[in-house]
Amino acid sequence: MPAGFRYAGVHAGIKDGAKNTKKDVAIIASDVPATTAGVFTKNLIQAAPVRLCRQRVHTGSAQAVIVNSGNANACTGEKGMQDALETSAIAASALNIPEEKILVCSTGTIGIPLPMDRIEKGVRQSAASLSPEGFNDAAAAIMTTDTRPKQAFSSITIDNRPASFYGMAKGSGMIAPNMATLLGFIMTDTAVDPGALRECLREATETSFNSITVDGDQSTNDTVLMLANGKAGNTPINREHKDWPVFRDTVRNIAEELAMMIVKDGEGATKFVKINIRDAASPEDARLAARAVANSLLVKTAWYGADPNWGRIMAALGYSGAALNENEIKISFDNLKVVRNGMTADTDPKELVAVISKKEFEITISLGAGKSVHSMYSCDISHGYVDINASYMT
Amino acid sequence: MPAGFRYAGVHAGIKDGAKNTKKDVAIIASDVPATTAGVFTKNLIQAAPVRLCRQRVHTGSAQAVIVNSGNANACTGEKGMQDALETSAIAASALNIPEEKILVCSTGTIGIPLPMDRIEKGVRQSAASLSPEGFNDAAAAIMTTDTRPKQAFSSITIDNRPASFYGMAKGSGMIAPNMATLLGFIMTDTAVDPGALRECLREATETSFNSITVDGDQSTNDTVLMLANGKAGNTPINREHKDWPVFRDTVRNIAEELAMMIVKDGEGATKFVKINIRDAASPEDARLAARAVANSLLVKTAWYGADPNWGRIMAALGYSGAALNENEIKISFDNLKVVRNGMTADTDPKELVAVISKKEFEITISLGAGKSVHSMYSCDISHGYVDINASYMT
Repeated sequence: MPAGFRYAGVHAGIKDGAKNTKKDVAIIASDVPATTAGVFTKNLIQAAPVRLCRQRVHTGSAQAVIVNSGNANACTGEKGMQDALETSAIAASALNIPEEKILVCSTGTIGIPLPMDRIEKGVRQSAASLSPEGFNDAAAAIMTTDTRPKQAFSSITIDNRPASFYGMAKGSGMIAPNMATLLGFIMTDTAVDPGALRECLREATETSFNSITVDGDQSTNDTVLMLANGKAGNTPINREHKDWPVFRDTVRNIAEELAMMIVKDGEGATKFVKINIRDAASPEDARLAARAVANSLLVKTAWYGADPNWGRIMAALGYSGAALNENEIKISFDNLKVVRNGMTADTDPKELVAVISKKEFEITISLGAGKSVHSMYSCDISHGYVDINASYMT
Repeated sequence: MPAGFRYAGVHAGIKDGAKNTKKDVAIIASDVPATTAGVFTKNLIQAAPVRLCRQRVHTGSAQAVIVNSGNANACTGEKGMQDALETSAIAASALNIPEEKILVCSTGTIGIPLPMDRIEKGVRQSAASLSPEGFNDAAAAIMTTDTRPKQAFSSITIDNRPASFYGMAKGSGMIAPNMATLLGFIMTDTAVDPGALRECLREATETSFNSITVDGDQSTNDTVLMLANGKAGNTPINREHKDWPVFRDTVRNIAEELAMMIVKDGEGATKFVKINIRDAASPEDARLAARAVANSLLVKTAWYGADPNWGRIMAALGYSGAALNENEIKISFDNLKVVRNGMTADTDPKELVAVISKKEFEITISLGAGKSVHSMYSCDISHGYVDINASYMT
C-alpha cells in the first residue's frame, strides 16, 4: 500500500436512516498535501460536490476526500452547494486540514437534500477511525448497487525506491462512455509533477473509465481523483523521467482494472464483452461504432440469451454514424468468423452459441473503411437489470 | 375503404417452414398505377428490398407492394438483391403488372437468404386470393413480434367527392427515431400530385414514425409507402387546392395513429408515455432532449416499476446535448409538478406514483433555454422486452 494514506468507512444511515447497516461515509486522507488530478462527468447537470471538486482540484493539491453513498446531492440547488461546503468544513475541523484541501464526492439518488446531521455524524466517526488498514471499509462505504468492492494494487520502482499504488472504485448502473458513472480514487506515494499527473490521469481514463458502458446513461456525479503524496521520497517525476513509462502504465493498468470490475459488476450483468473495432475511417468513427454496439439494447439482450444474432450488430454499426464499407465488414466472436464480406460466414450456429454462452468473450469488428481502432467493454442487459432499476428509489 | 385496392395475406412458412401457421406474405395491389411516395431508413446498412424500393419509388408511380415477414433480406449481398428482384418478377407475372411498378418490403431476421421457393408459393397464393376485403389478412401477414395488427381508416371530402384512406403498419422492436423500425403503408383513392404527395408523406412522418421509440435501435428495413390511386375521381390536388389542409391533416392523423399503435405494442411494453419538450433553444435541441429521455434505459425501467425517479430524467437531459438552464428546468407528470427550478417540487410521492402507475401518461419538460418544442412517444422496458429479445432468433 502507498505510504502516508489512511482510510475509513462507517455506517451513517444516509439513505434509509436505521433501515440498514450499509457503510455509507468514507474518508481517504493523506498525511501531507498530495499532488492531485481529477476527471469529471461531461453531463451538463452536475452535482454540487462535482462542481466543488472541480474548483478545488484546479489548485493541483488536496489532502483528503470525503465520500458519501446513498445520496447524489444533485439537482439540489444552492442548498446542495451549501451542504457540500458544510461537509468539507466538518471534515476540515475533524481532520485538522485546511478546508480548501478537502474534496467531496457523493453518489446515490438524485434530488434529495443531504441529511446533514447524519453526514456530520458519519464524517466525525470516520475521521476518528482513520487507519492505514481502513481501505476495505472505505471501498465498501462508497458502493451503491455494487455487489462487491472494487480495488486494485500495484508496486513499482522509481529512482530505485519502491513506489506503491492503490485504487478503489464504485459503479454499476448509469454507466456510459464519456466518464462512466462512477467514483474512482487512485492513491500513490510517488512524487509527481502536477501537470504530468493531470495528463497521465486523463490518458488513463480514455482507455478505462471512458471505454466502458453498462446502460448508456451518463451520470451527474462521475468523478475520478488521483492523489500522489510523495511519501516514496523520490524527486518529483515528469514525462522526461526514465521511469515515467512504468509510472504511466501502472496508472493505466489500475484504471483499466477498476473499469473492468465495474462492467463485470454491472447491474444484473451475467456476461462481460470486449468489443474491438478495427479498420475504421478515423479514431472518432471507431469510438462511434464501438459505442453503438456496446449500448444497443437488442445486442445486449441477445448476449443475455446467448443468441448469436449478428444482424443486430450490423444494424447498430449502420446507425452508429461511423463510415463503413458494408461489403467488407468482418465480425468474429472470439476466434470464430461470424460475418465475412458483410454476410454470414456460415459458421455452425452451435459453435457461435458456445462462444456467447461464455461469461466473457470478445467481438471483433472490421469496418473495412480505414485503419483506426478502438475497444470498449460492455455487459449484457438481463432480467436482473430491470429488477434493480424498476425499484431503485422507492 | 379507398376504392380500387385489393389485399391478401397468406402463410408460406418463411421463417420456420411448417413449424407455425402465421401469415407471412402480403400483397397490396391497386387496380391502376398509383401515385407513390416513400420514406426509408437512414441506417447505412440497408436491406436489398429497401434499396430496390428506393429506386422504384423515385419514378413516383407503383401498383403493388409485396411484403414478407420472418426474414429481413438484409446483409445478404448480391444474392439478396437478386432475390428481391426475383420476388418482384414472380409478382409481376402473377399480377400481370409491369415489374418496375412492384415494390418489395421484407421484415424479420437479418442475414439469412430468403427461402425463394416459399416466397414464390406465398406470392402466387396471395395474388390468387386478392380481394378488397383482404386487408385484415394483409395487416396480419406483415407482423413479426407485434401482438396485434395495426390499422387506421379515414374518409374526407375532396372536390365534393368522398375520398378514403386506409393505413396499416407493423413494428414493435428495433424502433428508434429517424424512421422507427417498421413497415407502414397508407392507401388512398384521392388523386394527388406526385410532388405534393412526397412532401405530405415526409411531413407526416416527422411527427409520427420519426417521433417514436421503443428501444432506440434503428433497423435496416424501415419503409413507409403511400399509394394514391385516384379512384376517387377528383382532379389531382396539390398544396394550392382548397381541400389540401384536410388531406394533409388526414394523412398525418393516420400516420400518427399507426405510430402510436406501434409504441403501445412495443415489445414487452406495459406503459405508453408522451414526452413533451418545451422552451428548448432550437428545434434540434428539443429533439435531442426528447430522444435522450425517451431512450434512457434507466428512465424506461423506472416507468416499468412506477418509480417517480425524476433524477434520471434530469441526468438524461444533461447528457442529451441540448442546451439547458438547470435552475429553470420544470418537469410535470401529467398535471402534477415534479421539478421546479431544477429541484424537487415537493409533491407528495404517492401522487406521483399514482400518475406513473397509469397505462398512459405525459411527461412535460421545460428546458428554460428558448422557445422550441418537440414531442415523442415512448414506452417502458420490462421483463417482457428482455424475454422477447433474449430469444428472438434462436
